[in-house]
Amino acid sequence: MSDTEQAKTYCLVISCPDAVGIVAEVSKFVAEHDGSFVESNHYTDVQGAWFYMRNVINADSLSISIEEFREQFQAVADKFEMIWTVRASNEKQKVVLLASHASHCLADLLYRWHSNELNCDIPCVVSNHENLRSMVEWHGIPFHHVPVTKENKPEAFKQMNEIIERHNADTVVLARYMQIIPPELCQKFAGRLINIHHSFLPSFIGANPYQKAYERGVKLIGATSHYVTEDLDEGPIIEQDVIRVNHSCSKEDLVRMGKDVESAVLSRALRYHLDDRVIVRGNKCVVFQ
Amino acid sequence: MSDTEQAKTYCLVISCPDAVGIVAEVSKFVAEHDGSFVESNHYTDVQGAWFYMRNVINADSLSISIEEFREQFQAVADKFEMIWTVRASNEKQKVVLLASHASHCLADLLYRWHSNELNCDIPCVVSNHENLRSMVEWHGIPFHHVPVTKENKPEAFKQMNEIIERHNADTVVLARYMQIIPPELCQKFAGRLINIHHSFLPSFIGANPYQKAYERGVKLIGATSHYVTEDLDEGPIIEQDVIRVNHSCSKEDLVRMGKDVESAVLSRALRYHLDDRVIVRGNKCVVFQ
Amino acid sequence: MSDTEQAKTYCLVISCPDAVGIVAEVSKFVAEHDGSFVESNHYTDVQGAWFYMRNVINADSLSISIEEFREQFQAVADKFEMIWTVRASNEKQKVVLLASHASHCLADLLYRWHSNELNCDIPCVVSNHENLRSMVEWHGIPFHHVPVTKENKPEAFKQMNEIIERHNADTVVLARYMQIIPPELCQKFAGRLINIHHSFLPSFIGANPYQKAYERGVKLIGATSHYVTEDLDEGPIIEQDVIRVNHSCSKEDLVRMGKDVESAVLSRALRYHLDDRVIVRGNKCVVFQ
Amino acid sequence: MSDTEQAKTYCLVISCPDAVGIVAEVSKFVAEHDGSFVESNHYTDVQGAWFYMRNVINADSLSISIEEFREQFQAVADKFEMIWTVRASNEKQKVVLLASHASHCLADLLYRWHSNELNCDIPCVVSNHENLRSMVEWHGIPFHHVPVTKENKPEAFKQMNEIIERHNADTVVLARYMQIIPPELCQKFAGRLINIHHSFLPSFIGANPYQKAYERGVKLIGATSHYVTEDLDEGPIIEQDVIRVNHSCSKEDLVRMGKDVESAVLSRALRYHLDDRVIVRGNKCVVFQ
Repeated sequence: MSDTEQAKTYCLVISCPDAVGIVAEVSKFVAEHDGSFVESNHYTDVQGAWFYMRNVINADSLSISIEEFREQFQAVADKFEMIWTVRASNEKQKVVLLASHASHCLADLLYRWHSNELNCDIPCVVSNHENLRSMVEWHGIPFHHVPVTKENKPEAFKQMNEIIERHNADTVVLARYMQIIPPELCQKFAGRLINIHHSFLPSFIGANPYQKAYERGVKLIGATSHYVTEDLDEGPIIEQDVIRVNHSCSKEDLVRMGKDVESAVLSRALRYHLDDRVIVRGNKCVVFQ
Repeated sequence: MSDTEQAKTYCLVISCPDAVGIVAEVSKFVAEHDGSFVESNHYTDVQGAWFYMRNVINADSLSISIEEFREQFQAVADKFEMIWTVRASNEKQKVVLLASHASHCLADLLYRWHSNELNCDIPCVVSNHENLRSMVEWHGIPFHHVPVTKENKPEAFKQMNEIIERHNADTVVLARYMQIIPPELCQKFAGRLINIHHSFLPSFIGANPYQKAYERGVKLIGATSHYVTEDLDEGPIIEQDVIRVNHSCSKEDLVRMGKDVESAVLSRALRYHLDDRVIVRGNKCVVFQ
Repeated sequence: MSDTEQAKTYCLVISCPDAVGIVAEVSKFVAEHDGSFVESNHYTDVQGAWFYMRNVINADSLSISIEEFREQFQAVADKFEMIWTVRASNEKQKVVLLASHASHCLADLLYRWHSNELNCDIPCVVSNHENLRSMVEWHGIPFHHVPVTKENKPEAFKQMNEIIERHNADTVVLARYMQIIPPELCQKFAGRLINIHHSFLPSFIGANPYQKAYERGVKLIGATSHYVTEDLDEGPIIEQDVIRVNHSCSKEDLVRMGKDVESAVLSRALRYHLDDRVIVRGNKCVVFQ
Repeated sequence: MSDTEQAKTYCLVISCPDAVGIVAEVSKFVAEHDGSFVESNHYTDVQGAWFYMRNVINADSLSISIEEFREQFQAVADKFEMIWTVRASNEKQKVVLLASHASHCLADLLYRWHSNELNCDIPCVVSNHENLRSMVEWHGIPFHHVPVTKENKPEAFKQMNEIIERHNADTVVLARYMQIIPPELCQKFAGRLINIHHSFLPSFIGANPYQKAYERGVKLIGATSHYVTEDLDEGPIIEQDVIRVNHSCSKEDLVRMGKDVESAVLSRALRYHLDDRVIVRGNKCVVFQ
């Protein structure tokens, strides 16, 4: 588990068809430039014949700059047909948060950002309600109110898209944003648009999961953070968790108790995403914890 | 949490329409016969206007016998239209276990029974395979092999039914018994036929839940113990639990890891059932833990 | 689990020597005044021969006022030598929060108070540091800075005591307040002064528990909320929880990960306390969840 | 998570002073012999300047035998002063189990061994009581009764040592064996002698941990599996877990509930050990899960 206050590192993330010699070539490349590994994981999906790797390298140990790294590593990458990125720990992603009326996930993310637990910038928060403006602005973050109605939906999302573009968002987080995202935005931010669903998916897909959980009499309720795709609640799962409930819990109790799980799961998922721990392939996520 | 090795107790379980004075009348009745409560819980479903109560009474403290209790308490029960039972802790239920090829749930239940953790008798085990005979017989329990095929299903279940009847089963447990139970048996043993489903219901209903969990890329897998109804995997849930998995787990890993959750959930559910902690109403269970 | 947004209720909490007929008398009293139970639990410590009871009664159902209840119930209480309280759900306790430099527990409690999850008023926050003033004041709560040094400790605590008295605090919460509380304050607020210790007590008593946990190589870290007594970290435990860690976690990681457990455990403990779910006897807590 | 039923693999485990190029050299060696990684983890303890690595290699992919691997890899090992082993997945360790009167851990390990969940042979079980003989022998495993009294302790342990030697034990597991192991045996089996302690260490060191937990009023109880050293309950921790308890649990309830945690923790620890996932250094374990 990396700590954002630690020394500068480069995070090299790779996925490619499985082959003999990948680790050897990658580690040889790093060693030849005096790089020292802080953390390293790789995983081979034998059935899918696909290789996944995440390396954290001490930046100070390397004899080359990140630009030189990017340029020179391309030869290794080409050899194995790699999908790859390298990012310095001080290159903070820009994360735009979308919220509706509920405050718990937003408050939790803002608190963690404020106390340097999340390695990102938050250029703005967009909401279809006004009620969270003061909380956001206290953190020194611009708040944009973009109301969404049945009638104005296309214009509203056009406006939202402009805000997101203007702030050069790398990642967009739906912090209990209760509107369905248009397909274009899903595609544009594929693998960079994170949602929190208030159930343990695939249980209780769609609206009112706590009502459904109450009616079914389940003994655990949960939350799921996933990348958003055009298929509602069907995107690749990043993180999930549950808590125990019992017969004495009203639907309102489930809602209240679920808030803590939702906040915890979303912040963990965003943290993994920001630390480049997540590699999406098809409808599944490899998460190097 | 009761302990089966403790002093003799009577367990009085009540459910009825909610009304003022139920607790007062019940506790007055117990106090008038010098009864001392070891444990007591009640719960009112305000929305459903229904009252649930479980009382454990020290048998030695009572000035009347359980037969007298049964006779005299009927007046209280009639007044509030109670559905009620009273059972002495030394009246052991007869539990018939049904198993197929997989051994983990059966082995776990047999071990717990053997070490006096389950307050029941096990008059026999019935299986559609022969492979677990030796394990069952080592415990001194008769083993009946009733093969089930597409062709012989009605006769096989007739035979099974005869075995269950002959042993005067109070409760039947499907310890990973992989055959669909005929509606007649579901009805006959309504609220007394316990299954373990190898997923966190309502996720992954039906066959091959681990395969489905693997494909969906969930981060937790679970198990659910429920009373069997005619609607497959839709009966009232007694207990559920989950464990964490990750991308590196093959489907075989999920199967292996899931075994521990299945065994744990089933044995807890059966324990709650045997200790008269479960009250079914509609499709939900009140479980006084 | 009660919900603070529900209808007005009275919470009647009782502990007394065990005897036959307590439940009968209590429930008869409630029934005679048409009271309807929303929730009720009792527990007998057989070894200690002590009886504990918590009843939540629908206020609207009762034919008497809370003052009349207090007056008339005394006869029942006297008969069984009860220690007892009855409180209306709209009588909010006044809770003074003490903090030092760390923000996580304070931020969590303020957020929950702000979103009506905690049934209390927070008349002020006192800290020996200035850094959290803005966060507290944003919530509209007065912030008092009372620096504590080796030299000024008696005067500082005199000042703090005056602040606490002036605000008529019912309960004081140490939200990671890093000063040892003087014995007088411990005694004055016995059973009303709540601390969060950043370890799973009794492991790692005293200072630097995360350093000790790191050195011992434990696989789980935890937090403990307890009532403060004169014996440091030895008071009655209200709530505890843990999370999994591993060899790759630095001491700094443990500190970061521990924050979430500390916040969660403290807020749960305070919630139980405010909902009159906790009864202290000797060095142990009965917690009716 | 490996699965013991999978294809033959070699597990290469390394620890050595940290240096640049270790991963490169190791992976180059494997690649040069056409080896394909099934799983690989490494971790650098930056503070301790020590490197840890575990590699699982598909045996069929390698162009050399394990003997040739051992011979040729020595040059790499020498260069970095490695402590290292390589073991084929079909080289099963011989594990001798020691038990006393309690059956739960032994029954659990025997069941898992019987169902091929533990990749080991169990040449015999030794106990200072007779009561578990039948259970052990049903599994086809020899049972040795070695009574231990205050008077005969040295002779008893001499006899036990002979049994362990005669069976060429690689690992010895104390499955709730309630005798203190003599220092010579601790030293001889350093890193290969596994105990289960029935508390969440370092809480409740020594005898009667459940009694102590009951008296302290903790809200979670746990179990700890560790390598045995001469300092009682102070050895390197392999695995720990906890479960929730409450005020209503008697000491007997804690004992009963604790059994499940003890069994689960011990079997996980042994599994990690047998899969070469554990590297001990000083008083801590790196566990590659």
